[in-house]
Amino acid sequence: MLKVNAERLNQRLAFLSQFGSRPDGGVTRYALSAEEKAATDTVAGWMAEAGLEVRRDAVGNLFGRLAGKRQGPAVLTGSHLDSVPNGGNYDGPAGVLCALEAVAAMKEQGIVPALPIEVVSFIGEEGSRFAWGLLGSSFLAGEFPVAQIGELKDRSGVTLADALRSYGANPEAARTAKVEPGAYKAYVEVHIEQSGLLEARGLPVGIVSGIAGMCQLTGVIRGRAEHAGACPMELRRDPMPAAAEVVLEVERAARESGPSTRATVGFVQARPGAANVIPESVELSFDIRDLDAERRDACVERVSSYFRAVCERRGLSGEMVLQHTSTPIRCDDGVVGVMRDAAAVVGVEPFELASGAVHDGANVAAVCPVGMIFLRSRDGLSHAPGEFTSVEDVGVGCQLLGETLVRLAGA
Amino acid sequence: MLKVNAERLNQRLAFLSQFGSRPDGGVTRYALSAEEKAATDTVAGWMAEAGLEVRRDAVGNLFGRLAGKRQGPAVLTGSHLDSVPNGGNYDGPAGVLCALEAVAAMKEQGIVPALPIEVVSFIGEEGSRFAWGLLGSSFLAGEFPVAQIGELKDRSGVTLADALRSYGANPEAARTAKVEPGAYKAYVEVHIEQSGLLEARGLPVGIVSGIAGMCQLTGVIRGRAEHAGACPMELRRDPMPAAAEVVLEVERAARESGPSTRATVGFVQARPGAANVIPESVELSFDIRDLDAERRDACVERVSSYFRAVCERRGLSGEMVLQHTSTPIRCDDGVVGVMRDAAAVVGVEPFELASGAVHDGANVAAVCPVGMIFLRSRDGLSHAPGEFTSVEDVGVGCQLLGETLVRLAGA
Repeated sequence: MLKVNAERLNQRLAFLSQFGSRPDGGVTRYALSAEEKAATDTVAGWMAEAGLEVRRDAVGNLFGRLAGKRQGPAVLTGSHLDSVPNGGNYDGPAGVLCALEAVAAMKEQGIVPALPIEVVSFIGEEGSRFAWGLLGSSFLAGEFPVAQIGELKDRSGVTLADALRSYGANPEAARTAKVEPGAYKAYVEVHIEQSGLLEARGLPVGIVSGIAGMCQLTGVIRGRAEHAGACPMELRRDPMPAAAEVVLEVERAARESGPSTRATVGFVQARPGAANVIPESVELSFDIRDLDAERRDACVERVSSYFRAVCERRGLSGEMVLQHTSTPIRCDDGVVGVMRDAAAVVGVEPFELASGAVHDGANVAAVCPVGMIFLRSRDGLSHAPGEFTSVEDVGVGCQLLGETLVRLAGA
Repeated sequence: MLKVNAERLNQRLAFLSQFGSRPDGGVTRYALSAEEKAATDTVAGWMAEAGLEVRRDAVGNLFGRLAGKRQGPAVLTGSHLDSVPNGGNYDGPAGVLCALEAVAAMKEQGIVPALPIEVVSFIGEEGSRFAWGLLGSSFLAGEFPVAQIGELKDRSGVTLADALRSYGANPEAARTAKVEPGAYKAYVEVHIEQSGLLEARGLPVGIVSGIAGMCQLTGVIRGRAEHAGACPMELRRDPMPAAAEVVLEVERAARESGPSTRATVGFVQARPGAANVIPESVELSFDIRDLDAERRDACVERVSSYFRAVCERRGLSGEMVLQHTSTPIRCDDGVVGVMRDAAAVVGVEPFELASGAVHDGANVAAVCPVGMIFLRSRDGLSHAPGEFTSVEDVGVGCQLLGETLVRLAGA
């Protein structure tokens, strides 16, 4: 069995945390920032040290290739190194470094796979700088509208093209980052779990069955601003209780839809927002996801029609606007099967779970079969300074990844 | 009969609307802001022009004094110049400018009252910046806990003491703003009506019988921030639906309490407030009022215990904090009698109505007898850009005030 060095992997995770570190222990490492560059350059150095053939594509995605016994489609594995503002040290880097460690261990132990294996670090997965997540993998899959590369701007007005340029990448050649169909045999990504399911079950790792499709909407309910003391209850056109009814319906709709449906109101704002004024309007955000697109859409439809009914019943006007939607992805049965075999060898339960969060794999699925491994995350935390996965769990995940890669690439 | 200049009064109302004006025609003029200062300075100029003796107390309340034939307690009259966010041009300024116009007209027409008359503009009546309404009159009445002047903060963390300092006032001497018992013979305030009763009855003005008692609280419910897609519904500790339940209980409690009870949630904020993050906390404001203190307190108690129960049932922590309370007051029978006599002279029906909104008079009632005059407001609107009282109605209200002041101050 492949012997991975969990200590080295863990030390490298700790080393990367310096890039964009914040006083409270969190990390801010935006897409195409100097911090992402420094972390990526460091990983490139480790790749070279491990004897991989290092290259970058035109948008800055980093690849480290372990040659196979023969030519043929490579097995791709990795994740990303950027973070949300004040995020943690595991979301992203854990996947890149597990991939590097698994491949480095193979090299050190003289295991030469039949097909090549490539470790990848995608640029800008989080979408915290540009309002476009999964940036690197969207170029790889040809999903990014390259014509907009000079138009998409961050909050300070820097275009994606300029950001790529200062990163040292080559936006003019961005189209070349798209890979040909058949270039990869499979893509496998390790990522921390972003809820507490594995922790609750006492499992170090899990096999991902699919990635939920997201639907984000905004809603605004408009009534009439009036004096909170003077206006009798029966004369009010107050959007606040209407919004409250909708929030409760969102929760009910998701609970009654099934265990894979998640619906969240994360943003709410009343205007003018004063204690002694009946609000004129209340704005809400809706984030509704499911592994099953039909079930998700049914949930969206239920919330939308309830929203309309509440507005009508209360004499208010309101509208919901679709902001963003993504298609659910099922992980590949073949890859999942290989992972189950690998889990038996490693000696862990092949527990399957869905990913409610979107990952680069959702893009790469357009290019080749995709599989994912989740690592137990303390308190299910992610996108927060407190993210933590133990060295033991990272080791088990890396081991499971290594055995999966060996099987996918063949001997 | 006193001849007031309704046109001049109306032009001055329009002139003040520039301070804090907003693109949609509303006005935002917070307590102790540069906008409140500019409006107050303008009124101070008009006071001086009218020959009044102008002074400010230690917290920035503005006074313009018309000397009487003899020494003795003055008759106080006025209102405030601050507004709610995106409020209108009449709530507050109408009372200050009616008072100024009535006194200026007396001066111009050579009417010298027996007792002095003072026009007042109180700072910060609305409580939209600091969670403490009737700020200026609470200092005048000695109702403000001066020890907290360095602790009470606005939402950006500025203390009341610092706000007073940048306003040019003198927080160290705040205690001196408290007036001695016997300093004033009576207080009379003109204000727009804040519901549609006068409009429904076709009356230009009304005589206020009493002021509802207010209770303002803030509540915060704390859960756990998590990834909106990853965390299953059953593992969430989401404060948002809990807040929604509380909002609906506020509405039910007020409706079931009786027609004079009003309860409002005007402010809500989820943190961090991102569409794809389950909120860590939701903050709410509560404004609960009644003419009857016991009925109001029962409503507050019902909401508070429901709040606690929801937090407990949902595994959340939460607290409600009392921000401010005011006792319902009855207007003074003597002052109301004088107003009825004045109404007969002016030729308007002496229609009496209660105020659901709190006014500075609720504080001043601790110092001297209080009376109020309401002006008809279009659609009963207040705290909104659409506030409107016709020049004719403002004129009738000013006339009624003038005749009342003449009678209260004596000849």
